[in-house]
Amino acid sequence: MSAKVEARTLKGFRDYAPREQLARQAMFAKIQEVFERFGFLPLSTPVLEYKEILMNKYGDDEKLVYSFKDMGDRDVAMRYDLTVSLARFVAQNRGSISFPFKRYQIAPVWRAENTQKGRLREFYQCDVDIVGGQGEFLGTADAEVMACLCGALEALGIQNYELRLNDRFLIHNLARSEEEVAQVPELLRCVDKLDKIGLEEVNKLMVQRGISEDFRERALELLSWGKGNGFLDKVEKLDEAAAASVKFYRQLVESIVALGVAKEKVVFDPTIARGLDYYTSTVFEIVLVGVEGFGSIAGGGRYNDLLSTFSDDSLPAVGGSIGIDRLYEYLESLDTTFKAQGVDVVVFNLTESDWTDMDVLQMVNTLRENDISVDIYYESAKLDKQFKYAESKGAKFAVLLGGEEKLAGKVKLKNLATREQVELAPDEVLAHIKNT
Amino acid sequence: MSAKVEARTLKGFRDYAPREQLARQAMFAKIQEVFERFGFLPLSTPVLEYKEILMNKYGDDEKLVYSFKDMGDRDVAMRYDLTVSLARFVAQNRGSISFPFKRYQIAPVWRAENTQKGRLREFYQCDVDIVGGQGEFLGTADAEVMACLCGALEALGIQNYELRLNDRFLIHNLARSEEEVAQVPELLRCVDKLDKIGLEEVNKLMVQRGISEDFRERALELLSWGKGNGFLDKVEKLDEAAAASVKFYRQLVESIVALGVAKEKVVFDPTIARGLDYYTSTVFEIVLVGVEGFGSIAGGGRYNDLLSTFSDDSLPAVGGSIGIDRLYEYLESLDTTFKAQGVDVVVFNLTESDWTDMDVLQMVNTLRENDISVDIYYESAKLDKQFKYAESKGAKFAVLLGGEEKLAGKVKLKNLATREQVELAPDEVLAHIKNT
Repeated sequence: MSAKVEARTLKGFRDYAPREQLARQAMFAKIQEVFERFGFLPLSTPVLEYKEILMNKYGDDEKLVYSFKDMGDRDVAMRYDLTVSLARFVAQNRGSISFPFKRYQIAPVWRAENTQKGRLREFYQCDVDIVGGQGEFLGTADAEVMACLCGALEALGIQNYELRLNDRFLIHNLARSEEEVAQVPELLRCVDKLDKIGLEEVNKLMVQRGISEDFRERALELLSWGKGNGFLDKVEKLDEAAAASVKFYRQLVESIVALGVAKEKVVFDPTIARGLDYYTSTVFEIVLVGVEGFGSIAGGGRYNDLLSTFSDDSLPAVGGSIGIDRLYEYLESLDTTFKAQGVDVVVFNLTESDWTDMDVLQMVNTLRENDISVDIYYESAKLDKQFKYAESKGAKFAVLLGGEEKLAGKVKLKNLATREQVELAPDEVLAHIKNT
Repeated sequence: MSAKVEARTLKGFRDYAPREQLARQAMFAKIQEVFERFGFLPLSTPVLEYKEILMNKYGDDEKLVYSFKDMGDRDVAMRYDLTVSLARFVAQNRGSISFPFKRYQIAPVWRAENTQKGRLREFYQCDVDIVGGQGEFLGTADAEVMACLCGALEALGIQNYELRLNDRFLIHNLARSEEEVAQVPELLRCVDKLDKIGLEEVNKLMVQRGISEDFRERALELLSWGKGNGFLDKVEKLDEAAAASVKFYRQLVESIVALGVAKEKVVFDPTIARGLDYYTSTVFEIVLVGVEGFGSIAGGGRYNDLLSTFSDDSLPAVGGSIGIDRLYEYLESLDTTFKAQGVDVVVFNLTESDWTDMDVLQMVNTLRENDISVDIYYESAKLDKQFKYAESKGAKFAVLLGGEEKLAGKVKLKNLATREQVELAPDEVLAHIKNT
């Protein structure tokens, strides 16, 4: 016998026990259904990619990428997000893809995050992206991505969300010189912190990071105009380019609303910056209203450099992602339909052997053929043990078939929620369950 | 600009393009449905485990395990199968699990296989296992695992399968001395090759591997009795233990049949050995009949050492697995319902801008609210380009709304399979699609 090993999971990695996983799968299925209803089709890409494909993408976070040498001495890496693999797929199959390429992917990614912040190192992303199209601004595509993510949240029973939208162009448009244009990404990174630290601190940060005084003042004035329509009315009067951006925004909202999102849930918020340099115009976040500390549960935007790793061609794209793991925690905390479900029926074993009678198995088979999920307690065991088991499986009914009832050709069906018990002929069981 | 990177996947890894992945997801969903109908609930375990948990499990194949040092200098490994993680989960949560623990897991595993044999290094397994129970032989549990896998295949439209069953005990039972008992695993490994190389070559192999002459002869005689009922009738007369095994087998088949598998699909086959030392009694394989070169598409058996890595306790288990990737290749080659599906409708853009009219979007929204999947061609483009796109999405219908029709308040709905085209009022589109 070899020495025993401790049964444990790695830090930042976790199991999902059956009833947790059942709830998660129900969430994935709902989200997938909405993604497909919006015309997105699934793409599956490998967990491992050549490491070079992932490099120079994540700035300081590059150190969080799981990478190693494989048996063929290749440098490989576990995917850190789903967008890089999408870009690789598109570059690799460009000739055979009919653009626009609309794909979704619901899959885990890996990041060696600091687990002290409660972060997982393996977690799921639910992404939709629309790649290609000739225009710089494909307004309807932007609207579709956002309406689709909102639709997915609504399918999960979430109504208390807000879609916060911004156009990064408005800050770009404030730059008056080559020097200021070069400062835009840094300035956006400062603006990204506005929600957390306020205008005054953002100003200090800008000074510290070398944003020129004029540019800083112009940006701070813009940001001081608040949010929503008041903000837009002022921006509209700035110049022609800003007015065009506002016009685009208004049509975008109109499209999002036509696609099923309630108008009052869509808000223009000039403080949404989405840290990454990546995005070129539309950026958005979806937040839960009235739930402190949850931050954004979805986000995305338009980016026009999808293929830059692989070629000099540019191919525009717009996309977004739902962070399912935090949403799962949130939904688990509510009394929603995503509370753990289980099997419909557990059939108890009332014999004195571990073999179940053939007439019991035939009834089980009939129920299953009619889409009832049926579990059997295989062993011969005391009734209280079998009831405990049925509870652990989240069963709605217990079927007891044996002893007196059996002699009378009857089955006992116990509703485990109401504790009601009825005696039925075996062929009445199906109808009774279907009608409950 | 940094140097460009070649867009490619690693050897043994592949993408599944949208319509391929749609078909695969449909397969997974069908299998999952059957697994749940049989009372199995899903378990999710991490892709990465402590390396020590995977070691001393796979014999020579241990070198195929992807392992590396993570950032915290831990030795970690990517899962090689789903059973080891199941064992780890059970050992870790033993106190809170209500046994028997029935779980399914449909997930990818990684093995650095020789890709020249056409093998993938990332592939899916669909496992069901039943862990726990007091008896050495929980007959109904064994029957459930096999009936469940057969049910999953039938749900995929596969009828030309055969369930080949054996009891490893029959070979164990032939051993007459300590020495011969020790030779059993090696002898089973030789028997495992019978299908490929025939009795004579198996005999040579046994000599070569040092199986004692007497034991060899007894085994060869047994194997020469063929398959099916004739074989069982002879075995029954061998001794009391062999007769008990045959009795167990007959009841097992009766149970499998009661659970919905056609009797003629179940065959006793003493040559099924399932290489691994792992299995203790029942072993089985499911093969496609009349499809050369496919070998087994599912298999499994009973094993009673699930926890041996973690503790001295033993916990019996029975399980099986469907290899989905080869099955996908097979189904793709047939004209089945798993041929790629796509979106229901593509709405064409007949405007001169990349914005779609609001009345179009509202109709799209209505269709989606009624569970029709609708894609929009976002750009303003020539009709033939839009038709090509609709084809690439596997669309059933194209909706054209614009020009003359629009003036008349009508929509053109084109059935892309039949090429038929009708003019409808926008609110008639839904009913027309639902009725087609």
